Amino acid sequence: MAHRSAAIVTVGSELTLGLRIDTNTATVARTLATYGFTVTEAVSVADNLEVLVAALRRLTYAYELVIVTGGLGPTHDDITREAAAAALDLPLTRDSRLVEVLRPAVCRHRDDGAREQVLRQADVLRGAEILDPETGTAPGQLVATACGELLLLPGPPSEMLPMLMRGLQRKSPVCAAPRELGIAQMPESEAQVLIEGAITDMRGIGFTILSKPGDVRALLADSGAGGERLSEAADAAAEALGVHCYSSHGESLAEVVVRSAAQSGRTIALAESCTGGMVCAALTEVPGSSSAFIGGVVAYSNDAKTALLGVSEEVVSQHGAVSAQVAEGMAAGALAAFDTDLAVSVTGIAGPDGGSSDKPVGTVWFGLAVRSPSDGSVRVRSLLRRLPGTRTGVRDRATATALEVLRREILGLPAL
Amino acid sequence: MAHRSAAIVTVGSELTLGLRIDTNTATVARTLATYGFTVTEAVSVADNLEVLVAALRRLTYAYELVIVTGGLGPTHDDITREAAAAALDLPLTRDSRLVEVLRPAVCRHRDDGAREQVLRQADVLRGAEILDPETGTAPGQLVATACGELLLLPGPPSEMLPMLMRGLQRKSPVCAAPRELGIAQMPESEAQVLIEGAITDMRGIGFTILSKPGDVRALLADSGAGGERLSEAADAAAEALGVHCYSSHGESLAEVVVRSAAQSGRTIALAESCTGGMVCAALTEVPGSSSAFIGGVVAYSNDAKTALLGVSEEVVSQHGAVSAQVAEGMAAGALAAFDTDLAVSVTGIAGPDGGSSDKPVGTVWFGLAVRSPSDGSVRVRSLLRRLPGTRTGVRDRATATALEVLRREILGLPAL
Repeated sequence: MAHRSAAIVTVGSELTLGLRIDTNTATVARTLATYGFTVTEAVSVADNLEVLVAALRRLTYAYELVIVTGGLGPTHDDITREAAAAALDLPLTRDSRLVEVLRPAVCRHRDDGAREQVLRQADVLRGAEILDPETGTAPGQLVATACGELLLLPGPPSEMLPMLMRGLQRKSPVCAAPRELGIAQMPESEAQVLIEGAITDMRGIGFTILSKPGDVRALLADSGAGGERLSEAADAAAEALGVHCYSSHGESLAEVVVRSAAQSGRTIALAESCTGGMVCAALTEVPGSSSAFIGGVVAYSNDAKTALLGVSEEVVSQHGAVSAQVAEGMAAGALAAFDTDLAVSVTGIAGPDGGSSDKPVGTVWFGLAVRSPSDGSVRVRSLLRRLPGTRTGVRDRATATALEVLRREILGLPAL
Repeated sequence: MAHRSAAIVTVGSELTLGLRIDTNTATVARTLATYGFTVTEAVSVADNLEVLVAALRRLTYAYELVIVTGGLGPTHDDITREAAAAALDLPLTRDSRLVEVLRPAVCRHRDDGAREQVLRQADVLRGAEILDPETGTAPGQLVATACGELLLLPGPPSEMLPMLMRGLQRKSPVCAAPRELGIAQMPESEAQVLIEGAITDMRGIGFTILSKPGDVRALLADSGAGGERLSEAADAAAEALGVHCYSSHGESLAEVVVRSAAQSGRTIALAESCTGGMVCAALTEVPGSSSAFIGGVVAYSNDAKTALLGVSEEVVSQHGAVSAQVAEGMAAGALAAFDTDLAVSVTGIAGPDGGSSDKPVGTVWFGLAVRSPSDGSVRVRSLLRRLPGTRTGVRDRATATALEVLRREILGLPAL
C-alpha cells in the first residue's frame, strides 16, 4: 500500500511561547502511521490569524491530509475556524443543530457577549462533515481541500483522540507500529552502516538513529512496505547488529537486565564509585526492579571501599582506587554484603580533575563477581575501558557499560 | 526594546513519526523570550532533505532569527547542514580546525565510510561562525540570512541549550547574562506570583519559569534595562522567595549542598530506598563532590536495610519499611557506617505498585542524622511527604526533597 502524505498543525501561543510541551503532535503522528499516513512536517502556530491562515493554505496544497488540533474553543483567541475559512476560501455558517447541542453551555452565561462566544463553536465551514464531541463542547470538522482533506480537532487530548479515530475510521488500518532497536557498545555510525547493509534491498522501510552517550537506538518504520516486511527488516537489522542489539521492541537496557535477571531468578548488587549511584538509579527506575535488584554501595571515598566492601587498605594503596584489583574487590564485597548471585562494580576517573598520564580522565575499571549456582563458589573478573567525553559523558558511558556487563553475564553472551 | 521575530525548526523523523515528544521547541522558545524574541511558528521536519530545504528557505525569509535543532550528527539522516546550504545557496567547506577536534572520534573507527561520516561534522556553511561543542561532537553554526540569522544547533538538549545561550549572547551584546534563580519546595505558580510582585515596577526585565518535578527555576533576562537593573531585579526576586531560593546564579541544588558542606568542613552519607541511588548520583554529578560526599547505601530490599544499615528486623516488621522509625534507623546507620557528620535517608513508595490506603503511592519518609561537632552525640529526626506524580515524578521529587533537607541543615535554615 502506498503511503499517503499528512501534516499536523497544533494551535496555541502556549506552545510557541514554550509554556507547554506539545504532546498532540506525537499522539496524532503515531495514530496516522497506523492508518497508512506518513507525516513529514508538523507545525505549531501561535494564536495569530495571519500566521495560521498562511500555514493552512500552504499545507492543504502540499499534503493529502492536514490535521489541526486546538483553537476550536469559545474564547477570543480560538481562531482555527476563521483561519480555515480564510485559507480554503469557504464561508462559515452557524449550524442550527449544533446551536441546540450548545444550549446548556449557553444557558450557563448571563452576559450576551459570553453567550455569543459559546455559540461560535456552532460555526461550520460550508460542506464540512461535523464530528460531535464525546466530551467537551467543541465539535470537530472534516472538509475537502485541493489535495485531500482538512480535519479540525479540539486541543485537549481526551477530546481530540477519540474524534481523530472516528475521522480516520474509513481509512484502512494496515501499517505496523514502528520498531525500536536498542544497541549497546557500538558507535552510532557503525550501527548505521550495519543496518543499512541489512535492509539495503528493502524498499518502503524508513530508519533513523537516536543516540545518547553510551546508548544508541535505531527506529525502523513502515513507509509503505507493510508490517510483515517491517518485521523482516527489524529482524535482519537486529541480526546484523548481533550481540550488540539488546532489544528489538523498545525496551531500555536496564529493563532488559531486570527482566532477564528476574526470569532466571538471579539477584543483583552494585558497588559504584565514579558513577556514584547512577547504575543503581537506572535499575530502580524499572518498575518491579525489586524482584532482581537487592541493593548497592556507593563507595566514593577509599575508606568507604574498605569499611563497607572489605577492600583492604593495602590493595587500595598498592594499586590505586582505579585498578583491576580494587574493581574486583568491590564486586566481591558487594556480592557478599548483599548476598546476591551477581555483583558489578565501577571505579574510575570521571574528571574534570584526578587524571594522570598513567590513568587519564575516562579510565574506568569494571568488576564482575558471579556466584556459581551449583557449588556457591565465586568467580571474579574485571574490564578496563577508556571512555571519552566530559564528566557527564564518562559517567553515562560507564553506567551503560556496567549494565551491559550484567546483561551479557545474565544471558550467557560473550563477555565484553 | 521592540521584540524581534523568531521561528524554531526541530529536525528528526522520530518527531514526525510520533516516537519522541519534542521538548526542544519549548526550551528554545522560553530561552528566546528572555532575549526579546517572539516565536509565532515552530516546525518539526522529518529527516527529508526536500521538506527541510523548503522549510528553511521559507522561514529564513520570514523571520529575523531561525533556530534549528537536530540533524547535525554524523549519520546519513543528519541532513541539516546540507539543507541549510541548499536553502541559503551557500557552499559547505570542511573546516581544518574542526577536523583536528574530531580526530579522536575519527580514530575510534576502522572503516573509511564510518570515518568520513564523522568528518561530515566539520562541514561548515561559508561565512558561518562556529560554536564549539562543550559536550558531544557536533559544532553549532551561526550564519547570516536575508532577514537576520540562522542558528544550527545539535539535538540533544544538554548540548543544545548551552550553545543556544552562547549564540544568543553574541547576538545581543547589550544584554547582560541572564540570572537563574533556583527554587526549592515551592509550586511554580506561587514562585511566579512572588517574583512578579517583586519586579513589578521594573521595565525591561523579562522572566520565565522552567519547572521539573521537585525543582523550579526562574530565568531573569535583561531585555533593555541594563545589567545593574537586572541585578536589582534578581536580588529582589530572591528576597521575595526567601528560604526557598537556594541559588541566584544558576547553581543546582546539589552544587549548593556540596559547596556549603565543603565550606563548613562537614561530610555527608546517604541511605536510599525508593530513590535507588538518585540522591547519590545527583551529589556525585558535582565536580569535586568527594570533598564532602563520602558514600551511600542503596538498600532496596529489607534485608539490605538490616545487613548494611543496622535497622533491626523487628523495627521493619513492626512499622513497615516506609515509616519514621525505619527512615531514622537508615540515616543513623549510614552516619555510623560511613563515619560522617550528616546522613540523610529516603524510604517510600514510588509506585506504580506497592501502595495501600494507609500508605498510598507517593508516601515518602526522610530521615536526618546529625553528629554534634562539640560532643559527637547524634540526633535523628524524620519528615513525611506525600509526593504527587508517576514513579519517575515521585523519585525526582523525593531526590530534590532529600537534597533540600541537607541544604537547610548545613546552612542552619529552618527545617522542612
